[in-house]
Amino acid sequence: MTQNPSADVRLSTMRKYVHGYSAKESSRLSDQAGTLTKLLHADTHYPPGTRILEAGCGIGAQSLSLCRSSPESTFECMDISRASLVEARRLAVAQGVDNVSFRQGDIYALPYRTESLDHVFVCFVLEHLSNVEKALSEFKRVLKSGGTLTVIEGDHGSYYCHPKSLAADLVVQCLVKLQADAGGDALIGRRLYPLLAQAGYSNVVVSPRMVYVDASRPDLVEGFTRKTFTAMVKGVKDQALTFGLIDERTWDQGIADLNRTARRDGTFCYTFFKGVCAKP
Amino acid sequence: MTQNPSADVRLSTMRKYVHGYSAKESSRLSDQAGTLTKLLHADTHYPPGTRILEAGCGIGAQSLSLCRSSPESTFECMDISRASLVEARRLAVAQGVDNVSFRQGDIYALPYRTESLDHVFVCFVLEHLSNVEKALSEFKRVLKSGGTLTVIEGDHGSYYCHPKSLAADLVVQCLVKLQADAGGDALIGRRLYPLLAQAGYSNVVVSPRMVYVDASRPDLVEGFTRKTFTAMVKGVKDQALTFGLIDERTWDQGIADLNRTARRDGTFCYTFFKGVCAKP
Repeated sequence: MTQNPSADVRLSTMRKYVHGYSAKESSRLSDQAGTLTKLLHADTHYPPGTRILEAGCGIGAQSLSLCRSSPESTFECMDISRASLVEARRLAVAQGVDNVSFRQGDIYALPYRTESLDHVFVCFVLEHLSNVEKALSEFKRVLKSGGTLTVIEGDHGSYYCHPKSLAADLVVQCLVKLQADAGGDALIGRRLYPLLAQAGYSNVVVSPRMVYVDASRPDLVEGFTRKTFTAMVKGVKDQALTFGLIDERTWDQGIADLNRTARRDGTFCYTFFKGVCAKP
Repeated sequence: MTQNPSADVRLSTMRKYVHGYSAKESSRLSDQAGTLTKLLHADTHYPPGTRILEAGCGIGAQSLSLCRSSPESTFECMDISRASLVEARRLAVAQGVDNVSFRQGDIYALPYRTESLDHVFVCFVLEHLSNVEKALSEFKRVLKSGGTLTVIEGDHGSYYCHPKSLAADLVVQCLVKLQADAGGDALIGRRLYPLLAQAGYSNVVVSPRMVYVDASRPDLVEGFTRKTFTAMVKGVKDQALTFGLIDERTWDQGIADLNRTARRDGTFCYTFFKGVCAKP
């Protein structure tokens, strides 16, 4: 028990972030953002003077490219993890990005006044929350009337590959289960449209962003198949084995099979979903 | 036994076409082509004077829009089914398309001279063949040096939906199994790149064409989720039950769940793959 009910939520959210907070994970998040920047953010620009909240910015993997593409907007990047914010601030300074500030806060109780923001941006965050509806409601509270929300999420059920591998499927399912056990939903991408519509947003438009990788796209073979997706899955090995979700032999086979898809005759598919909508 | 070895292949291919040749199936193929024309063919135009073979044209569901978008090219549309060709010819006449001719022929022994064609177009055909490599080799034989090949295929493993449903997954797996039993591969889309590269084509470029359906896209809800995908799956009910792949109750639940995704809070995803390449 604690006097501040949101502190419980905050600690619980932190403890349960399935990917952890290691240096290796920070590096994976940066690789992922570099590879995906064009696919996910190329159509995102804010008019001069826009005040934007990025809720759940982590180490700022998405933030800095957004700041650069809308240099006359003001970005307020918030996260629950103080360590992530220290790293995000360090990267912003190192890259000379100055239209951004960082602060710690709880996504379920945003430290912003009602109807004070023009836009809320959320990327790879809702999938980890146990109460997505509450977060969407909080975003709506802090948005001005007519303000807009962008949500980007993956969907691990959208993964498939060649050669097809049952072991690889089982390994990916471990990640889905671990995320579900932590209260999240790794299959949230496909649900984005109904989630946003049911939360009372208007003009909801969801567009899929499919990553298709074959040997003619070596940047994606390295940047996505190996360093983003397979790296992400590998990161939960200890948890998957500890919780008895899979045996080590099947795990190792699955990871080998995921890496196998990065060879010349392999292919790999994954889809992100980007939703944009407005507060009526 | 027969004196013409290709006749065996022809009859065997016809008998095994998993979707059958009914009037309902013809109507489904036309609905499918109407909904998908832009997604699959908008970037396909042939220069004046191009001589194009469509191998496996069926009832001409794709052919006529291709003919219209490249009016100064000549299309030779071939299929193994005489009945399909009669219908295709009727539709061409009815729609006033005159840059097309139809003939019966075997995809494994094309009735065309070596190096006589500028382009070969194949859509939703390789997935049904037991010897894809042989067909790709035949296409290469009849193409002029520098001639090009377009292949479009689906991948039933790319399907997923909300609400998620195990029964729906099992129903879709029936179609995959039936197609595999008939010698085909309903998961061929993801394999297109290695298939074309290994067959000796150059400049292979495969691009995914994802169909994403939510309630904001009523044309796709009706034209794709209901009338294309769910209709296609429903068409193999008798076969699936006859071969004991599923019990009727699970089947009916799966179909109901597929239709459920067409409601206001449902979503549906499927991906086609389009490959373009050249004969070196």
